[in-house]
Amino acid sequence: MVMKVHGSVLSPPVLRVFAALCEKDLEFEFVFVEVKAGEHNKEPFLALNPFGQIPAFEDGDLKLFESRAITQYIAHVYKDEGTPLVCEGKPMATVSVWMEVEAHQFEPVAIKLQWELAYKPKLGKVTDAAEVEENEAKLAKVLDIYEARLSQSKYLGCDCFTLADLHHLPALTNLMGTQVKKLFDTRPKVSAWAADIMARPAWAKVLARKNQH
Amino acid sequence: MVMKVHGSVLSPPVLRVFAALCEKDLEFEFVFVEVKAGEHNKEPFLALNPFGQIPAFEDGDLKLFESRAITQYIAHVYKDEGTPLVCEGKPMATVSVWMEVEAHQFEPVAIKLQWELAYKPKLGKVTDAAEVEENEAKLAKVLDIYEARLSQSKYLGCDCFTLADLHHLPALTNLMGTQVKKLFDTRPKVSAWAADIMARPAWAKVLARKNQH
Ligand SMILES: N[C@@H](CCC(=O)N[C@@H](CS)C(=O)NCC(=O)O)C(=O)O
Ligand SMILES: N[C@@H](CCC(=O)N[C@@H](CS)C(=O)NCC(=O)O)C(=O)O
Repeated sequence: MVMKVHGSVLSPPVLRVFAALCEKDLEFEFVFVEVKAGEHNKEPFLALNPFGQIPAFEDGDLKLFESRAITQYIAHVYKDEGTPLVCEGKPMATVSVWMEVEAHQFEPVAIKLQWELAYKPKLGKVTDAAEVEENEAKLAKVLDIYEARLSQSKYLGCDCFTLADLHHLPALTNLMGTQVKKLFDTRPKVSAWAADIMARPAWAKVLARKNQH
Repeated sequence: MVMKVHGSVLSPPVLRVFAALCEKDLEFEFVFVEVKAGEHNKEPFLALNPFGQIPAFEDGDLKLFESRAITQYIAHVYKDEGTPLVCEGKPMATVSVWMEVEAHQFEPVAIKLQWELAYKPKLGKVTDAAEVEENEAKLAKVLDIYEARLSQSKYLGCDCFTLADLHHLPALTNLMGTQVKKLFDTRPKVSAWAADIMARPAWAKVLARKNQH
């Protein structure tokens, strides 16, 4: 039975799961959840994720939610297919640190900037300049630390591309289409890293699949 | 060489790491970081965590930060000592889901409630009633989902105590000393779970060590 991803291609956490599946070259079925119509807050979706958030995921009988739990499952259970995405022992401890950094340092700031600069203009809403300024300053600090890290290590977690990098892809791609791009461009290691991971064939497949919908 | 935890016992993420070490019955040295004096934002601490946040951790040459990366390291590398804390294969996927739930659904709300109801009064600051009301409503929703989950499973991740439960302990213990306790008391499965995990001998050891400082 083919794996299923439930959600919308407009959702960064959904594309994070797509990215892991494409790196592993695994087939999957996409089940569209119409968030505008509130489908995520009703059965049958709530049986997949009681928090009513996309993505949700099925592999046979196993039902999962929370995008990073899903990508870790894919990386561990399909470890012999495609790109490794995780490693073992002490190096994995450092990969975990940078996975936590993405979740607790990068994402909260990236979500606010995406909302103000990528989603609000499309929805005809007014961008809050103070919110942008505050979060650009926070992102600049995070990226300074990334710049230092990427001077010691080819990728964030270790010298190979792992989930610690992959988890950034959806927000990174959105932010590159906004004024925030300048914060990347002015940091040579960070901009080389961003260009490298965004150029991965698996990510091109994700974007192609996104554009089908 | 004995492991080192750098931080302050007033920090929930520091106590999260203590909890994992005590469940594993591992010896460790506690290195006090004086946050009030800004020690976390200076060398030598920044060499341990460039984000300037406690805890930081050392095991021989290995330096880690981000509390949940540290607890995962402890659980995986010391997997044959003390309480297992993680499991393998498909059940671990579900434990990961609930670890993500703690990080993304529970903690953001718990941090705000701890700040308003536990820390602000001690600092002589005024609690923001609207912020409390908003976050109590959010916590109630999260705990409704926990109540349903704990009707199917003895602990959040599976039928054994794991990191998915342990990660809650510091915030849970703080919140139980505030008006928010009522949200737990009115949910039988949640309150039995909270009482059970707070009564663990390893957690009693953490609190004893906290009170030494
Ligand atoms: N931590 C979750 C976040 C998921 C999330 O925030 N999904 C959004 C779409 S991007 C959603 O479903 N929002 C609807 C809602 O919260 O009501 C994950 O990584 O999967
Ligand atoms: N996600 C981090 C959070 C660490 C954190 O927020 N630590 C606080 C103390 S509870 C801190 O160091 N704050 C000082 C600061 O951010 O300047 C973890 O889990 O380790």
